[in-house]
Amino acid sequence: MKLITFEGIEGVGKSTQINLLNEWLISLGYSVKLLREPGSTNFGEKIRSLLLSKESKITYETELLLMFAARSEMIKNHLTQAKEDFILCDRFYHASIAYQGYGRGLSLEFIDSLVDLIKCPIPELTIIYDLTVEKGFQRKTQDTIDRIESSGESFFKKVRTGYIDLATKRNEVHLIDANKSQDMIHEETKNLVTILINK
Amino acid sequence: MKLITFEGIEGVGKSTQINLLNEWLISLGYSVKLLREPGSTNFGEKIRSLLLSKESKITYETELLLMFAARSEMIKNHLTQAKEDFILCDRFYHASIAYQGYGRGLSLEFIDSLVDLIKCPIPELTIIYDLTVEKGFQRKTQDTIDRIESSGESFFKKVRTGYIDLATKRNEVHLIDANKSQDMIHEETKNLVTILINK
Repeated sequence: MKLITFEGIEGVGKSTQINLLNEWLISLGYSVKLLREPGSTNFGEKIRSLLLSKESKITYETELLLMFAARSEMIKNHLTQAKEDFILCDRFYHASIAYQGYGRGLSLEFIDSLVDLIKCPIPELTIIYDLTVEKGFQRKTQDTIDRIESSGESFFKKVRTGYIDLATKRNEVHLIDANKSQDMIHEETKNLVTILINK
Repeated sequence: MKLITFEGIEGVGKSTQINLLNEWLISLGYSVKLLREPGSTNFGEKIRSLLLSKESKITYETELLLMFAARSEMIKNHLTQAKEDFILCDRFYHASIAYQGYGRGLSLEFIDSLVDLIKCPIPELTIIYDLTVEKGFQRKTQDTIDRIESSGESFFKKVRTGYIDLATKRNEVHLIDANKSQDMIHEETKNLVTILINK
């Protein structure tokens, strides 16, 4: 099993790219499991609705702890002993570093200790689709915006800085410029995955 | 505001003692707020039902994180800027040390870092009602047993060891022998609270 995770601020086109990659991998004969965070388990989806509901007035610390609670359940139910060739996961712990660490200002060291606590596997590949916050916001329709997405531009600028830092510091993390066309982005995504397949 | 928390394994009679103490404090003219963990907020009660439902097959790590998520909300909503003279709280972070640390075997150091993260206030007084696990189980009616309570005797023996260790190591934590009569236990509880009032 190879775990590939996808990151980026709102509006970068993650879901589209995950679906295109999924179709391509299936066409090559691979088995693929699609996951999303927070969620992907019965329990995690309950946590997801608590987290994303605009009516939830929760502390940043609660937000962080719930993200990792849902993540722990996803790991136990879907990553441990997975039989698929590939798991494509829409966000993983890098998102907590970017959103709750850089964005909310919580301790990066503490977030690393949460990663250890729940024994997060390091993905074979993490792709960050990078776009300026202004462009991301333009692409997002206002009526579907959830609690975290409603945090404002200055928050997302800090999140983006976090993602760029991660791509600089961690070997498994790669940045793709999401200003390009959907097809170009898909090509670059396939190139990174091809390197992984040939390893 | 003085925070008093109450701890002990199942069946030690915590609720009875909290109610008796509450009545006594009110009779002395003090204002009192009663809280319970997990819970005491709208959000915390949702977490409580996830945590205690026997249908929730969650990891020990998830259990720990959810406890602290609910705790963070309780602190924000009820402890910060509380106006009452006394807050009596049925369990607090010492329970996580005993149950998730000693009982489930999770890192005590990590639990301490969670206490720091959500800025738990140290109670002015923590009372542990101590009873052997066998006696606690005898007092508990089987049909009201929740997910955590159904963890078995060997688990609760480790929890009890945790509580006894806490009473030995921490100044704010006091042990009361719960083998005595309800009235005797109430007298000892009042004695500890009187020392606190006269401080």
